[in-house]
Amino acid sequence: MRGVARSVRHLLRHGAYNKAIRVLQKLHSGDIAQVIMELKPPEQVRVFSFLVRENQELAAETITDLGFEQAILMLTSLTVQDTSSILQEVEIDDRAAFISDLPKELSDQILENMSLEESVQVQGLLQYEKETAGRIMTPNVFALEENLSVNEAIQTIQKKDEFEMVFYLYIVDDHGHLVGVVSLRQLLMNNPRTPLKTVMSSEMISVSTDMDQEEVANQVALYDLLAIPVVDYANKLVGIITVDDVIDVIKEEATEDILHLAGVEADDTFNSTTRNSVTKRLPWLGLNLALALIAATVVYLYRETIASLPTLAVFLPVVAGMGGNSGTQALALTVRSLALREVRWKNIRKIFTKELLVGLSNGMVLGLLSGGVGYIWSGRNLSVGVALAGAMLCTILLSGVLGTLIPMILNRVGIDPAVSSGIFLHTLTDIIGFFSFLGLAAFFLGALGG
Amino acid sequence: MRGVARSVRHLLRHGAYNKAIRVLQKLHSGDIAQVIMELKPPEQVRVFSFLVRENQELAAETITDLGFEQAILMLTSLTVQDTSSILQEVEIDDRAAFISDLPKELSDQILENMSLEESVQVQGLLQYEKETAGRIMTPNVFALEENLSVNEAIQTIQKKDEFEMVFYLYIVDDHGHLVGVVSLRQLLMNNPRTPLKTVMSSEMISVSTDMDQEEVANQVALYDLLAIPVVDYANKLVGIITVDDVIDVIKEEATEDILHLAGVEADDTFNSTTRNSVTKRLPWLGLNLALALIAATVVYLYRETIASLPTLAVFLPVVAGMGGNSGTQALALTVRSLALREVRWKNIRKIFTKELLVGLSNGMVLGLLSGGVGYIWSGRNLSVGVALAGAMLCTILLSGVLGTLIPMILNRVGIDPAVSSGIFLHTLTDIIGFFSFLGLAAFFLGALGG
Repeated sequence: MRGVARSVRHLLRHGAYNKAIRVLQKLHSGDIAQVIMELKPPEQVRVFSFLVRENQELAAETITDLGFEQAILMLTSLTVQDTSSILQEVEIDDRAAFISDLPKELSDQILENMSLEESVQVQGLLQYEKETAGRIMTPNVFALEENLSVNEAIQTIQKKDEFEMVFYLYIVDDHGHLVGVVSLRQLLMNNPRTPLKTVMSSEMISVSTDMDQEEVANQVALYDLLAIPVVDYANKLVGIITVDDVIDVIKEEATEDILHLAGVEADDTFNSTTRNSVTKRLPWLGLNLALALIAATVVYLYRETIASLPTLAVFLPVVAGMGGNSGTQALALTVRSLALREVRWKNIRKIFTKELLVGLSNGMVLGLLSGGVGYIWSGRNLSVGVALAGAMLCTILLSGVLGTLIPMILNRVGIDPAVSSGIFLHTLTDIIGFFSFLGLAAFFLGALGG
Repeated sequence: MRGVARSVRHLLRHGAYNKAIRVLQKLHSGDIAQVIMELKPPEQVRVFSFLVRENQELAAETITDLGFEQAILMLTSLTVQDTSSILQEVEIDDRAAFISDLPKELSDQILENMSLEESVQVQGLLQYEKETAGRIMTPNVFALEENLSVNEAIQTIQKKDEFEMVFYLYIVDDHGHLVGVVSLRQLLMNNPRTPLKTVMSSEMISVSTDMDQEEVANQVALYDLLAIPVVDYANKLVGIITVDDVIDVIKEEATEDILHLAGVEADDTFNSTTRNSVTKRLPWLGLNLALALIAATVVYLYRETIASLPTLAVFLPVVAGMGGNSGTQALALTVRSLALREVRWKNIRKIFTKELLVGLSNGMVLGLLSGGVGYIWSGRNLSVGVALAGAMLCTILLSGVLGTLIPMILNRVGIDPAVSSGIFLHTLTDIIGFFSFLGLAAFFLGALGG
């Protein structure tokens, strides 16, 4: 795509917009999206506004392939007219998602530009909460009446113009209740006069509109589905979620977990403004500072000990750092296992025992190593060596255990472990590290007389 | 599933294995997998060995729904005979994956138990490198000859017994080269006598056997595909990768990134042995210890300064911690954006400028705050306050910039940024933090006479 991007940029620079658009129109929307990402922001907007006027449908496909953040940025940079034209072609679930994330003023204008019917449909989706099945489903679901025969069903499909990827054909009763499912291939394998009712499978998996999108993704992945029907409280078929939407959800949830673990909010991206990034990251750093200062009071309490042997200060960040590192290992493992449903509360005893053993082994090895270094650096002061070895063992042992327990407990009480575990963990490991190191040092220095 | 697990466990405890199996057999394999996860390891093995004897096919489906690590654990716990029976029913791509991860002795026995043809097929897949398209594809791909008519094609499909989920029908020439694709629905929409050649679309996306699985997943997600054909160097159709396998790859890659960022290897899970976890985590912690000690030498150089004012020691871990935190924020954001292809090398100047501004803002706010605390805690020593404020600004500013640059540079030179960035980053932020804080403190204490 780099070569294409280069020639498109070259054409743009020489004002040959039509030629550039002609080059792009030969590509798949996914590729156009990639080319556009290679351009500079003003070029991106210019190309896009030309593309909209030339080929609305392709522009709409391209915008959904851009990635959500990038797409929102593009839609707000275009004229209201262009944005309306694009959104008109975008599938209804994506349209609702875009509109809900555009600035209020712009989204109001766009809803006004829509036909009443469309605007009602979009607002129907927006009534569902964010990150639920209702919000990400396509409401235009194609369904067959259970009283049709196989042959009538095939004819209905042949007459139908376009509908979102067909793999499962859902079957409803007179009142629109979901009663069964059949595949196109099953239709072909059966006698044309057989009624759908006898061909269909009535054991199928559906989700309700208020199910969390992560749970929906888990269901689709667990049962290897290509699509899952969405029903309302009365089991009426109201939408469908396809596997391509599920892939987006899986990526989004993984991104959220990675960023939360690092103390970043999920909507802080390279495309957000500096101001936005500052307001997103500063509160978390501020909280960390406050907690770090609380941990530092432990050091403050022992300032006499440090005054009597300043070399101790050298090892404070080492103890804190190692506690943080081994805690983070256990934490990441636990948070991810919880997200993938690979670990359960009832396994906690087994996990606790294991982390205790792992921490004990690692702590002993690293304790001996760092104890040796401490002994030498302090001018062969045995107290420092032993205190450092003991503190390392203690900190690594407990940080592993806490790195596992904290997220499991938070998850158990219904708090997202990716968001909050790190803060608790690092404050605790710092406090444990400082107390054990300085406490042991003070004890030995007192006992051995320095 | 909890209720079912409870009653299954109850039945097991009373020796009613057959009843327990009968309860399980009514469930979908995905649900059986969930029930099994709720049991204790010895119960799991017992249930599974009964299930194999009762219903091989269901046991095979269940094992693939268990999650890879858990499945390997189960396969090694069963008898060779049972493991062979299960693997015989597992799809060929999964079979190859399992066999390649079983202990050598066991996998050799299993390959011997197979028919020659099957064993050749498995070994054929194993010749491809891990994590490539060749390794994860299903080699039994159903293809239609280009010279068939629409009607003949439909008849071929109707005669065919079972093949991996059909959505796209791939079309090959006389020599097995991939020449086109058609959907079942397109067949239905066309005149029965039309030749496939004119119905098929010859513009399609395929991947080669040696493409990295992450890249395959990106292609499938980018183009919203349900399956992607795999071709060899001569464009011969050799396999197919379906979207359910792609979902597994996406989850696996996200897990790898999360764990690598935290310094854990991807195959360290709650199910691995203590010994395995120790050998996986210890080297990384050891390397961190070595690097932390290198950073600590900076503190060692300034031990005279600390001796003259021990309160300085209180703030060392605070400075190091804040540098680590703000660096991690930028790092996680960059690593994830690189994985999602949302950021490119050519955007580096823009990103650099932004991180500089974010770091400057956050650094000024947090520098002022911590400077104030430092001033008070040190008994209103202005030198400590100013040194701490300056060090915070400096560390937060540079850690943000480095947290972005390091992974981008590593990615540029072809090193996985998730694996190696953290180590470099934290050593650098520690060194920057200690140098700036103690250097400034030494300067002011000297200049102001302590």
